[in-house]
Amino acid sequence: MKEIKKIVVTGGLGFIGFNLVEKFLKEKYEVLIIDSMISGTKNKIIGRKNLKVFDIDISEKKDIKNIIDSCDLVIHLAAKGNVVESVQEPIENFNQNVFTTIQLLEILKDSEKCKKIIFSSTGGALMGDTPPPVNEKSCPNPISPYGASKLACEGYINAYSNCYGLNSIVFRFGNVYGPNGSHKKGVVNKFIRNSINDIEHIIYGSPNSSRDYIHVYDICEAILLGIEYFSKMEKNYELFHLANFEEVTLAKLIETIYKVSKKKNSYKILDYRKGEVLRNFCSFEKANNLLKFNPKYNLQKGIEDLYFWILENEFC
Amino acid sequence: MKEIKKIVVTGGLGFIGFNLVEKFLKEKYEVLIIDSMISGTKNKIIGRKNLKVFDIDISEKKDIKNIIDSCDLVIHLAAKGNVVESVQEPIENFNQNVFTTIQLLEILKDSEKCKKIIFSSTGGALMGDTPPPVNEKSCPNPISPYGASKLACEGYINAYSNCYGLNSIVFRFGNVYGPNGSHKKGVVNKFIRNSINDIEHIIYGSPNSSRDYIHVYDICEAILLGIEYFSKMEKNYELFHLANFEEVTLAKLIETIYKVSKKKNSYKILDYRKGEVLRNFCSFEKANNLLKFNPKYNLQKGIEDLYFWILENEFC
Repeated sequence: MKEIKKIVVTGGLGFIGFNLVEKFLKEKYEVLIIDSMISGTKNKIIGRKNLKVFDIDISEKKDIKNIIDSCDLVIHLAAKGNVVESVQEPIENFNQNVFTTIQLLEILKDSEKCKKIIFSSTGGALMGDTPPPVNEKSCPNPISPYGASKLACEGYINAYSNCYGLNSIVFRFGNVYGPNGSHKKGVVNKFIRNSINDIEHIIYGSPNSSRDYIHVYDICEAILLGIEYFSKMEKNYELFHLANFEEVTLAKLIETIYKVSKKKNSYKILDYRKGEVLRNFCSFEKANNLLKFNPKYNLQKGIEDLYFWILENEFC
Repeated sequence: MKEIKKIVVTGGLGFIGFNLVEKFLKEKYEVLIIDSMISGTKNKIIGRKNLKVFDIDISEKKDIKNIIDSCDLVIHLAAKGNVVESVQEPIENFNQNVFTTIQLLEILKDSEKCKKIIFSSTGGALMGDTPPPVNEKSCPNPISPYGASKLACEGYINAYSNCYGLNSIVFRFGNVYGPNGSHKKGVVNKFIRNSINDIEHIIYGSPNSSRDYIHVYDICEAILLGIEYFSKMEKNYELFHLANFEEVTLAKLIETIYKVSKKKNSYKILDYRKGEVLRNFCSFEKANNLLKFNPKYNLQKGIEDLYFWILENEFC
């Protein structure tokens, strides 16, 4: 019998959350989504068996507490994820990311039943200009309020795990792309839409600026492996980078989209934006060793699938 | 002419603050203290030339803003510093340490004149059980809410420095001891008082538990060197460990006090307390290289001076 049967997913209607909940329902988990419903994916999923959706802001502590107390695990995905917006509104980002995470941790600390949490952190924004490739032993160096918010959460999750008997897994995601993210403004989505619309790409800084892209299905697979890992965990707190260990420049991303679309978009270069990281890629060796994680999607295949998903879902 | 002439010290009546302000006044700095007056040192310093003392809680943003806007530098020492209390009251600690630091950073971000901050962080609590010796390249691993609070502040100071043009120096203090800390409950003060009172020492965990003790006068000297370093700084944000690079066990501390007092106190061992670090010592090589920092007090001399200071100031 599974130790973990009933899972709360905060931000469960968001890009990663939606894909993850689909996977959980296939795996026969009972799922409770807490989400403020801004992503517009609710209609695609509501009414499904083994699923409840709560339209609650994550800062409403009392309501959240009752939901969490009935579950075995919290997957905390709800967050303000945009680096540039965090530079414009650092306090808003702090409140949405750090304050709400501390509130969740307090609920877990006081809960009789629910003592497990999986937290979505970030690789690039947290590492800043630390020379890549980075791994779990690299020193964090956040250069944006968003990166700082995730580091703050990681520190508190570590401390709460040690002091109050929580079991926690933190995943530092690379740049996640894939289907069901129509509300997202990430560069992969934007460039694919530009390609479909024959619009010039905009590059901030340099075409050599790089990221480590990872497909959302690989992220979901890793989270499932993380859930299984709880029963084997020797420490209260474990941290994993999830990425492809591949440095993809913006030039390479544009080239990859061109191979699928056969349309060559021009691009213009604007100023580097404060808070953004110049280069980033990560090793996933630890996740491979302990979780047996191995990303299945290469960029070419992932972009191809996403190109046609966006064409079908946003343009038809 | 000095670039930095007028300095705000938050927590300027506390243990480190009081010693630091004394040094600043000798060096002809103009000093503004923001302090909630709990330490009882106010009467020792009030009325001095070039000094103003404001009895304001650091969370009162409007009042604090007016004070800071008139200065060249903020030294932010005000904090809840006790690991064990942070485990008992993590939210109180979060509000006092993280929330107030973010507020200060917002003031500096918006200030025309005051863009510099020196922040007091911690070595041991932030590093947790990372095997010592640690340095600035070691990976933080906070195992108490207090350690997590300091890591959160460091991350935000780094981010604000990068995004909003602040210049920041973070000092991670070892275990600071020395005069003018009568309100402090640290182990050095406690064991000296035990010795004077012929009371049994209490050890939590093990006599082999270790710290890297540093004299408050050495800390003050390092902060002065930090102020000079602002004019040479090549980055917006710089981090230094300040310690003696010496692992001192509780057994060694007791032995050192015995050498001064000639009185052998017995000790009893109680359970290890959650959140506390087992071993800690740090390299100060970076501070030595860049700031020319070199601690002058060895433990024997520091304990001897403090023993007689406590005898004179608390027992006469």
